Amino acid sequence: MIGDQHVIIVAGGSGKRMGAEVPKQFLEVAGRTLLDHTLAAFHHYNPNINCVLVLPADHVEQWETIVAKNGCALQYQIAVGGEQRFHSVRNGLALLPSTGIVAIHDGVRPTVSQTTIANAFEQAKIHGAAVPVLPIVPSLRQVQNTSSKAVDRTNFVEVQTPQCFQLEVLHKAYQQQYSPLFTDDASAVEASGHAIVLSKGNRENIKVTSPSDLPIVELFLKSKEFSK
Amino acid sequence: MIGDQHVIIVAGGSGKRMGAEVPKQFLEVAGRTLLDHTLAAFHHYNPNINCVLVLPADHVEQWETIVAKNGCALQYQIAVGGEQRFHSVRNGLALLPSTGIVAIHDGVRPTVSQTTIANAFEQAKIHGAAVPVLPIVPSLRQVQNTSSKAVDRTNFVEVQTPQCFQLEVLHKAYQQQYSPLFTDDASAVEASGHAIVLSKGNRENIKVTSPSDLPIVELFLKSKEFSK
Repeated sequence: MIGDQHVIIVAGGSGKRMGAEVPKQFLEVAGRTLLDHTLAAFHHYNPNINCVLVLPADHVEQWETIVAKNGCALQYQIAVGGEQRFHSVRNGLALLPSTGIVAIHDGVRPTVSQTTIANAFEQAKIHGAAVPVLPIVPSLRQVQNTSSKAVDRTNFVEVQTPQCFQLEVLHKAYQQQYSPLFTDDASAVEASGHAIVLSKGNRENIKVTSPSDLPIVELFLKSKEFSK
Repeated sequence: MIGDQHVIIVAGGSGKRMGAEVPKQFLEVAGRTLLDHTLAAFHHYNPNINCVLVLPADHVEQWETIVAKNGCALQYQIAVGGEQRFHSVRNGLALLPSTGIVAIHDGVRPTVSQTTIANAFEQAKIHGAAVPVLPIVPSLRQVQNTSSKAVDRTNFVEVQTPQCFQLEVLHKAYQQQYSPLFTDDASAVEASGHAIVLSKGNRENIKVTSPSDLPIVELFLKSKEFSK
């Protein structure tokens, strides 16, 4: 049922942490914007995937100027970003049907692998909700007030996107009232009573959040190793 | 009291995860072995620092051949690695006096910044035991048996090296029996009853553990941004 696949690309950030005038998803790396690299990854996975792109209202014109000039890897409908990620996803979700499988992916994660995408879709089809994760590499300490203690990192995983859901499950989750505990889509779905299954992410699938991430993501994009 | 500073560089790994014949600390990146880049960082911090280098017994000859050919950034004494990191550090510690401040650092963390080193030494001088940490970037989930739940990443930090200690504190910690819970020096010190203070690490201070880390560490070494 590859024809019944959807993706919401969340590019709602204003890029304040990047210290740049240009929102981070519009920065050019290896010849394209980060956002277009991200769209290309989903086009490569399924050229017929139905894409909703969530952009802040005041960035839509800038993005459309870029697309008019350079083209774009994947057709999309635009939804306008909200106050928090939760509201942005809810605005995107409003454009989708009531059944099928949807991936929700960060616009600034251009180095997601094809295997990561496929794994998450497959697990969501079977179990309703799947998020890609990886083991934690560094040692961890838990901080409590002024003290801290060592914790066993093997009890934790780091969470990536695309987080994939059956649309019935996701619509139900986004009918809830917003809570600040909803830091990602999985936490909102979990709060609605649906269990989350873990799929395997890829180490290169980093979220570009600071200027020091740009040369790393460029390295990954040029090596293309990640796309396997 | 910069003259009373010591460093134990732990290069005990056999590099099996790197899929290379050469132990990972001996791999050449940006014109030098990873280990020599690491030694150079401590030489830059304090050219008179007293260094103990812990190597597996069967790597000593290979290292000395490299040094005979290329030189080395910092004078050192060699201690032989043990079964676990705990035993390697204990063997290195046996060569150090009973007072002063010691840093324990991974041989495969060549991109530690001067500020990270200085912060950890300063905090250890005041408080007895300090480890460099950074906020966690990705979302975290805690895994329990077959299920998992979202946890608040702001309650956790990732731990780096150099972990710095007053030598009195460290000698006491390493008189304990080994426990598998001692995943780093801080956890051993903590088990001996001494509190750990957190200092600030640097994002580039990655531990090279897999081949995909090599181009990243090369990028950091060439940019030299990290050394500020």
